[in-house]
Amino acid sequence: MSELPPYWLRDNCPCTECRDHRNGQKLFRIGDLPKDLTIAASKEIGPDLEVLWSDGHRSRYPLAWLGETDHGDGRTEEGKRLWAAADFARGIPEADWEEYLADPAERAAVLAAVRHSGFAVLRGVPAVEGQVLRVAESFGYVRVTNYGELFDVRVEPDPNNLAFTSAAIAPHTDNPYRDPVPTLQLLHCLENSATGGDSGLVDGFKAAAVLRAESPADFALLTGTPVPFVFRDRRTELRADRPLIDVDALGRIREVRFNNRSIGTLRVGDREAFYAAYRRFAAITLRPELQLAFRLGPGDCLVFDNTRLLHARTAFRQDGHRHLQGCYADLDSLASTLAVLHRRSAALDAIAALFAGEGAGEYLGEEVTMAEHMLQAAAAAEAAGAPEHLVAAALLHDLGHFRGTLHGRDLMEGRDNRHSDTGADWLAQWFGPEVTEPVRLHVAAKRYLCAVEPGYRERLSEASEYTLTVQGGPMDGPQAAAFAELPGAADAVAVRRWDEQAKVAGARTPGFDHYRPLLAALMR
Amino acid sequence: MSELPPYWLRDNCPCTECRDHRNGQKLFRIGDLPKDLTIAASKEIGPDLEVLWSDGHRSRYPLAWLGETDHGDGRTEEGKRLWAAADFARGIPEADWEEYLADPAERAAVLAAVRHSGFAVLRGVPAVEGQVLRVAESFGYVRVTNYGELFDVRVEPDPNNLAFTSAAIAPHTDNPYRDPVPTLQLLHCLENSATGGDSGLVDGFKAAAVLRAESPADFALLTGTPVPFVFRDRRTELRADRPLIDVDALGRIREVRFNNRSIGTLRVGDREAFYAAYRRFAAITLRPELQLAFRLGPGDCLVFDNTRLLHARTAFRQDGHRHLQGCYADLDSLASTLAVLHRRSAALDAIAALFAGEGAGEYLGEEVTMAEHMLQAAAAAEAAGAPEHLVAAALLHDLGHFRGTLHGRDLMEGRDNRHSDTGADWLAQWFGPEVTEPVRLHVAAKRYLCAVEPGYRERLSEASEYTLTVQGGPMDGPQAAAFAELPGAADAVAVRRWDEQAKVAGARTPGFDHYRPLLAALMR
Repeated sequence: MSELPPYWLRDNCPCTECRDHRNGQKLFRIGDLPKDLTIAASKEIGPDLEVLWSDGHRSRYPLAWLGETDHGDGRTEEGKRLWAAADFARGIPEADWEEYLADPAERAAVLAAVRHSGFAVLRGVPAVEGQVLRVAESFGYVRVTNYGELFDVRVEPDPNNLAFTSAAIAPHTDNPYRDPVPTLQLLHCLENSATGGDSGLVDGFKAAAVLRAESPADFALLTGTPVPFVFRDRRTELRADRPLIDVDALGRIREVRFNNRSIGTLRVGDREAFYAAYRRFAAITLRPELQLAFRLGPGDCLVFDNTRLLHARTAFRQDGHRHLQGCYADLDSLASTLAVLHRRSAALDAIAALFAGEGAGEYLGEEVTMAEHMLQAAAAAEAAGAPEHLVAAALLHDLGHFRGTLHGRDLMEGRDNRHSDTGADWLAQWFGPEVTEPVRLHVAAKRYLCAVEPGYRERLSEASEYTLTVQGGPMDGPQAAAFAELPGAADAVAVRRWDEQAKVAGARTPGFDHYRPLLAALMR
Repeated sequence: MSELPPYWLRDNCPCTECRDHRNGQKLFRIGDLPKDLTIAASKEIGPDLEVLWSDGHRSRYPLAWLGETDHGDGRTEEGKRLWAAADFARGIPEADWEEYLADPAERAAVLAAVRHSGFAVLRGVPAVEGQVLRVAESFGYVRVTNYGELFDVRVEPDPNNLAFTSAAIAPHTDNPYRDPVPTLQLLHCLENSATGGDSGLVDGFKAAAVLRAESPADFALLTGTPVPFVFRDRRTELRADRPLIDVDALGRIREVRFNNRSIGTLRVGDREAFYAAYRRFAAITLRPELQLAFRLGPGDCLVFDNTRLLHARTAFRQDGHRHLQGCYADLDSLASTLAVLHRRSAALDAIAALFAGEGAGEYLGEEVTMAEHMLQAAAAAEAAGAPEHLVAAALLHDLGHFRGTLHGRDLMEGRDNRHSDTGADWLAQWFGPEVTEPVRLHVAAKRYLCAVEPGYRERLSEASEYTLTVQGGPMDGPQAAAFAELPGAADAVAVRRWDEQAKVAGARTPGFDHYRPLLAALMR
């Protein structure tokens, strides 16, 4: 492992002395590392590489981490799906607003479309004023500008921007005179009964890639010339000098600003050559094969990447009303929301794997597997009309058997594995107390019911009677009184009763996937 | 003029066919210009260059505009004053909050300090929660992030960021894992009675310039390597791949991101060389001569450029309370506010020039110059305890004599120059109707008073009696009744009475500069 750069490796030490475990932030300064730091010794231990450093520090790195490849932050052309209009011949990325709200998978699909294709359309968004802000808040934060928190796109008597007239607007990005530019734009259609006023989108990354392929010298000129974009009205005077096509340090297309309306007076570089390149790029953005055309109707909300997509609209006649509301937001928060949704989806996959794997093989003294047992408990809760959080608690109540240092099998051998606590703590990564506390208390609920309900203990299964002893036996009077006072006691007792009913060999229940949307909706 | 690039020149045509006069936005697409566009003919006409184009279009450019030099958008090192700590030996840029609010010149000085030096401190900002948002709103818009609209910087029981502990924090920029990064940060001190917890600032542009001078290869490495910055907590997963030092297309330093806590795993480039360069840059940021240290006390609000300045704090003992509130905002709006303040300041200069120039030379039939006349009217208004907008109206009421196509001298020759309308329209660029409408109606008020107030007409000066006729004579009954109904009638009558009193040869009054702050405060 001597080929690993020492400072790089040490800067990535994951130990709790080097990093805050809550957020992964480093607790040392790069300059705190000693001069001439070297690896004194290293060896593989199981799945890890252990490194002893010349300053005595010890680090442990998963070998899998060492070999990981990195896909970057997804903001350059490498993280995108570049497109031409024909790529959406079967339809554009879209979703129903209610489904988007209800189903995290649908939400993730919409946000992933914005991230990868640069846009998506939500249909059925209530056509009421201000709703566009609710859409933005569903994945991020509104960026307020001199145009306000939101802006109305309709014909205005004294417009400070061409958007607020009925004129055609050629493909462009918004606010190029702003730095930072708003990286996302939302346009929500409230009314569109005018003739004309259709929408168009062009993938600016694609257009830039076409320019690079057809005329590398022009591409170099546009990436190498800071262009002064300006906007000035009575209360505002904005200016940003940025290239039409911005590339990152490795030369990858990362941002397109294109808006002839706002280009001020360029006074640097070879202006003749620049204008030739600019006109060539402009002509590419107008090629029919790059122009995706569609029409926004009332309730449609277009969300798009303003660092990449050029948007346009055709002129319209004022024979009807056209009213859109727009706002700006930012890509970083959208990407964060998407990553957290993926993280939750991965958590559901992990839970599903427990049902399909260990849960399906383990009986723990009953005639049903643990997976069957938990699915039966959930089905019983559902049949009883239980609220969703209790269906979830019933479904997940015994997962702790597979997650702790002591397994369910240890419990059957007489050692309390405290599986209700283990399960609740593990689930608390994603679920709130309304789900985790009934799980945490489901063993206590058994001990409580044995104490207070005549005949309850007699109905316990043989295995449950056995574990009761290991878990501390029936509560005494004060314990039972204290339990009954707990806020989650009633929920825990309810889960406990479904737990008892869920030991019927051969009973048919829905599978885990049936509960996945319910679980996803409960995750926070 | 044949050396001017044709498309560049044509793209800058200022005519109303090519540009919207309200916002300067262009009304054509760059591709609309014909192929092979050339200048058919050009000639100088007075201060302008007139160009006849090969497509028949005619453009007219001020020669002065052709020769202008451009200072850029002020965001790169070229627009900054790079500093070391000793540059502030006589004190840091600071202002009192109340003066900042009251005096546009003070406000402009604070914003200019943030723009050029990267920071300023406002003193005496009320030490109440949420006030930091008011500070941000005084020049721009708050940028909301996962940390909220504002964030509390104090010791927290379960911190998701080191800022919320009592640990020392080395010089760093905030939120490097965000793209767009917040370009401004505000930190408002509510309480600071702990031992330690002092603040520090380092000019990151200066540090980068030092690195470039001392080790160009390291500078090139840091500008050329996209570094993955990451932040992850329960609800958030942010990542941005950006260089530690970002330069614009012309190689000028434009942005510094520096935060070891948030650097993730770099997997591109020569990591050994990168880490050597990174450590060298880190060492520069810690040089004592670059570290500006000061202490924020209750009511102090630090505003700084988060794309340039590194901020730090020393560790503190929990023997007292330390509580700051922070928020983010953006540089573009701050620069816009500053530009508009400068524009207003230029307007005041233009008004002052009228007082000092034409106004000081013109008598228009009275024994006082027009400047003396207007200053006397303002002094009379002030002496009467008039509200500020009426003092301003009295001061400015006759400026229209110098701004219209017809001059005050034309009026004296019998042609109505409608100077009250001309003045009101000109002033409406900067002042609201509470100032402009009494100006607009001050001639009508004379015609009204002549109609309704016995003895008023007899008291008019000879010149005023003469112009009364040119202006239409006394109102008739219905005209007077209609005038009295106007919302601004009483104000106009008040201004008119000060106008009449303001014709005293040799009377001493304050000069124009006395009224400048009052006018500045009324501008919107």
